[in-house]
Amino acid sequence: MTTTDPDWLKRTKDEDRELRAFVRFAPDLPAEKPAIRLGVKDIIDVAGLPTECGSQICEGQVPAATAPCVAMLEKGGVTVVGKTVTTEYATTKPGPTRNPLNHAHSPGGSSSGSAAGVGSGALDWALGTQTAGSVIRPAAFCGIVGFLPTAGRIPRGGVRIMSPTLDRVGLFARDVAGIEAMLKCFPAWAPDTLPDRPLRIAMLPAEVWEGADAATRSVIEGMAEAIRAAGDTVIDLPDAAPFLEMMAAQKVVMGYEILRSLSWELETHADLLSDELREFCEASRGITDLAYAEALETADRFRLMALRLFGEIDAIMGPASAQFPPEGLSWTGDPFVNRIWSLSKLPAIALPSAAAESGLKGSVQLNSGSGQDARLCAIAARYAPLAAAIRPG
Amino acid sequence: MTTTDPDWLKRTKDEDRELRAFVRFAPDLPAEKPAIRLGVKDIIDVAGLPTECGSQICEGQVPAATAPCVAMLEKGGVTVVGKTVTTEYATTKPGPTRNPLNHAHSPGGSSSGSAAGVGSGALDWALGTQTAGSVIRPAAFCGIVGFLPTAGRIPRGGVRIMSPTLDRVGLFARDVAGIEAMLKCFPAWAPDTLPDRPLRIAMLPAEVWEGADAATRSVIEGMAEAIRAAGDTVIDLPDAAPFLEMMAAQKVVMGYEILRSLSWELETHADLLSDELREFCEASRGITDLAYAEALETADRFRLMALRLFGEIDAIMGPASAQFPPEGLSWTGDPFVNRIWSLSKLPAIALPSAAAESGLKGSVQLNSGSGQDARLCAIAARYAPLAAAIRPG
Repeated sequence: MTTTDPDWLKRTKDEDRELRAFVRFAPDLPAEKPAIRLGVKDIIDVAGLPTECGSQICEGQVPAATAPCVAMLEKGGVTVVGKTVTTEYATTKPGPTRNPLNHAHSPGGSSSGSAAGVGSGALDWALGTQTAGSVIRPAAFCGIVGFLPTAGRIPRGGVRIMSPTLDRVGLFARDVAGIEAMLKCFPAWAPDTLPDRPLRIAMLPAEVWEGADAATRSVIEGMAEAIRAAGDTVIDLPDAAPFLEMMAAQKVVMGYEILRSLSWELETHADLLSDELREFCEASRGITDLAYAEALETADRFRLMALRLFGEIDAIMGPASAQFPPEGLSWTGDPFVNRIWSLSKLPAIALPSAAAESGLKGSVQLNSGSGQDARLCAIAARYAPLAAAIRPG
Repeated sequence: MTTTDPDWLKRTKDEDRELRAFVRFAPDLPAEKPAIRLGVKDIIDVAGLPTECGSQICEGQVPAATAPCVAMLEKGGVTVVGKTVTTEYATTKPGPTRNPLNHAHSPGGSSSGSAAGVGSGALDWALGTQTAGSVIRPAAFCGIVGFLPTAGRIPRGGVRIMSPTLDRVGLFARDVAGIEAMLKCFPAWAPDTLPDRPLRIAMLPAEVWEGADAATRSVIEGMAEAIRAAGDTVIDLPDAAPFLEMMAAQKVVMGYEILRSLSWELETHADLLSDELREFCEASRGITDLAYAEALETADRFRLMALRLFGEIDAIMGPASAQFPPEGLSWTGDPFVNRIWSLSKLPAIALPSAAAESGLKGSVQLNSGSGQDARLCAIAARYAPLAAAIRPG
């Protein structure tokens, strides 16, 4: 199935001179616009195209094989249009990508190009990865749907892993149906339906997201009202402590593991790493084995608490980002509450609000229990129109 | 530092026609024997050499970069002598490698060539990986020291990952000092010393290893006596249930994740996979998301239990393998109790006994708490001579 649009590639390339979602385009793309155009974050291997990880150190490194997460989508009928911009080694230092909703703002990171490409319409679907907030935040900033499946569901072969505990492949599409169509390309996917009763949605404790800006706050408060108005139940969680502990523990795990993943680069190409990444690694040398073990213990405890909790509720709702996209391209924003869900290994989805006057959108995050990805999609499909109707205050 | 032995390479290659530890040798090896000769399991990338994963599917796939775990050792002064034999995708189907202690027996797997190469003296150090028992068991079979560090300590970049939850890079050397010298090449390694009091060693509950053969049993019982005779304390653990649950849960996690990691190969090259691997994957399609979530929950609970336990004891002692090496090369043995420690993410070390009449050796496994790798090495250094004095009954 192709649409009749022979200028699609020229137009995409022209528009990308300004947007900068792509690192490079695949060779031999068809003259007719493919049915499903896929973008692949440039830390994921596609045979024949370099995987450069947003770093000079990897320039020109061409993998022999395609990552299984890409190959399964190709088998499902998608066409890889190109590799998309990542921040340096999927960490902090931004690439040149702009926000498709407002070019003066950051698209978020680290999966900047994947989110921007889907947001602009240059791509139908895209793959990213998340260590702290690198899927959910750029999805939120670019006004699209971002999905982080339960850890283990999507294979990580052929992905440059920075943190074995935290890193997950995540999905970008314009709507929840697109996310479900992507998930269907992976083994043993079984769709789920909603229970025949009002949903029970818990609010992420207010103390956890007190750092959110006013526009974000208005979207989340509006969403809680919309859920109640739809006949579902919104409940409060009494204890913020497990969530706050996870935000701190995620930083420990991330520092400890990224230092080790970059050990070769630090020894042999330190001059080609950004100052901020080098300093992040140097600071991480102070993380002791004990602190790392304690951080993992915090995660273990949280997961057991979450197991009980998600037996009683259907989802947790909160912001996908602490703030609307920062102005300028020098900072991709704070991972914020995403740290909790990255360390938890639990599924997460970001749903866009309506646009503010600036063109920028807010985003609602929903989380469910381990393996409940299909149920989370069903809940998200019910709530996506509610979120899309909320105009940020 | 080199030794004067200009025939080393010819001799190694000659001997390997029978032993079959190597898949291929590195080009341009020095004429003089290198100070430290490293073998790298052929699922770990070394730039310029193919990574073939024991499968025709990967034939000739040459990675652009060297895995950081190898690069850090190279920086520490080692020379990569070659890529070593792995079972098919580090799973069950054996390669051609023989046991260096007795060529009629299996060397264990999946890190068969790495263990056999160190055992034969062709290598000083080697790298392997473990998903179920693939480091500790081949170390045990080949009469050497195998070490599985706490998950996260050694970076997994450039390693073909089959199970993101389980897979860890592990180390092979002829003695504990060799293992410590390898660990020193990685970031922020701090050696530890023994406490100034008798050690408290807990026996792995007997119910967990009741499947062990008589020779293995005699080694473990002999070791308990030797530890007591050395003035340390041996205690029993009252509850076998958490350990037995972990053995079952590891199988669920492994099946669920390997099916997904091999999704591309199953779709596009199923005819090039062995019957046993294809059947393993087909059977794994029946593992539900719920079963997977419950298995991970078992692991979370075990890790919290272990945290308390290793506050009260110094190590757990038990067998490294259920049996002495099987005769013939068609089966590399059962992962047995290693499944527990693979899923736990905790460190493990295998120490060889004296040789039986067959030339084959038994092996003692010691385990400690999260991040206590240096302490575990110190305990192992104390106990290695005791284990080496035990003649299997």
